[in-house]
Amino acid sequence: MSGWLKVVGLGPGGAAQLTPEAAEALSAATDLVGYHTYLDRVSRRDGQRRHGSDNREEIDRARHALALAADGARVTVVSSGDPGVFAMASSVFEAVEAGPVAWRALDIQVVPGITAMLAAAARLGAPLGHDFCAISLSDNLKPWPLVLRRLEAAAKAGFVTALYNPTSKARPWQLDAAFDALRGWLPATIPVMFATAVGRADERIDTVDLAGARAALADMRTLVIVGSDATRRIARPGAADWIYSRRYVEEDRA
Amino acid sequence: MSGWLKVVGLGPGGAAQLTPEAAEALSAATDLVGYHTYLDRVSRRDGQRRHGSDNREEIDRARHALALAADGARVTVVSSGDPGVFAMASSVFEAVEAGPVAWRALDIQVVPGITAMLAAAARLGAPLGHDFCAISLSDNLKPWPLVLRRLEAAAKAGFVTALYNPTSKARPWQLDAAFDALRGWLPATIPVMFATAVGRADERIDTVDLAGARAALADMRTLVIVGSDATRRIARPGAADWIYSRRYVEEDRA
Repeated sequence: MSGWLKVVGLGPGGAAQLTPEAAEALSAATDLVGYHTYLDRVSRRDGQRRHGSDNREEIDRARHALALAADGARVTVVSSGDPGVFAMASSVFEAVEAGPVAWRALDIQVVPGITAMLAAAARLGAPLGHDFCAISLSDNLKPWPLVLRRLEAAAKAGFVTALYNPTSKARPWQLDAAFDALRGWLPATIPVMFATAVGRADERIDTVDLAGARAALADMRTLVIVGSDATRRIARPGAADWIYSRRYVEEDRA
Repeated sequence: MSGWLKVVGLGPGGAAQLTPEAAEALSAATDLVGYHTYLDRVSRRDGQRRHGSDNREEIDRARHALALAADGARVTVVSSGDPGVFAMASSVFEAVEAGPVAWRALDIQVVPGITAMLAAAARLGAPLGHDFCAISLSDNLKPWPLVLRRLEAAAKAGFVTALYNPTSKARPWQLDAAFDALRGWLPATIPVMFATAVGRADERIDTVDLAGARAALADMRTLVIVGSDATRRIARPGAADWIYSRRYVEEDRA
């Protein structure tokens, strides 16, 4: 059995942010597996099989990829961003744990990528320059009260917060509910950043105060970053403000 | 004035994890600026000036880079990992904010990279597959009680926690103090991961239970990840366990 499975992150968009290691995994595969929107971002190669599937079928997709690798295929599972951050790597290991014991001996490798919050932060300046957290706002996989409890913990402890999966057609109210809750815990002047389709032709960056933050500024391709009291705005001529979070805080305000 | 300044992340180590965008910024620069240990990782090129400096001189280094760019140089500031995560990008914008107003008109770009926690997580499996946070354990730039308060908030809210700057010669006791505190808030069986020199020849990965976590397993090149109750270990034959965090939780235990 000479098969292997690599779980690869494409980064945010273009080839300039794809690592050589990830490009090699895409090129060396006999089979590519992934959400079809992400597969569409990979160049076609003669003789390479493509197995596209719909979103939210992660576990079935992971089992399929593992079964192909167990049969001797060289399989690359494609994620956007980094595969370990709210993406396919966790699903692959969940399938390994629940699957045939032979899958534990498979040659599996996770190939990291530029995750959305890093790409978004780079466009904005350095908003993740201080302690920060990443929360998936989806309540498909955890109860909404737990999402709110984590937002509260992060806000009160002074973390900058990156919100993945902020909104979708099936989850239309959660992001505004999150902003409403955050307004109870954070100053109204805290910057809230919306980075949509970063690295792509229709990229859009908006920064507003928490007082004016609303879900209408986001879509499925948006990464939202909520600042902390370490976050600063620098006005500049003819361009969007730079946003950064200071490395230091003078005192503990608790 | 045709100068520019790019703040670039080298990723964790080798060229296979350096993005083409970052490689281009290194190649196009007239001047490279950075901590000399990181500059040593960049190939030398004829006619390119190198300005190495010691660690912990971030603001002076940032000012120097900005002044060079304002004089017309093409300047690339070199960070390890991602420049926006506990690295040079925040210092550059802090220097912009405090510096001459002309610096606000400079052509500045942040080029993201694979930050240490993504590289470490990929080697381990997918420990960042659930909500997580990143905390710098250094108390050079913030008071130690605030570090402890953030560790407590993260532990009690169920975040996986990545610890940057876990230890150094000048900060020998903080990591053990953090583990002692975490043992008061988390089950003794929670996995704690130590990923040292990831992507380099002397890479080392250790996973222990929180009960047995100790600072002696870390050095300055270590990224520590503390699991949550979503974190699972998968034993496998002849190799280190896979560690992953499940995407879902069934209920809110608060």
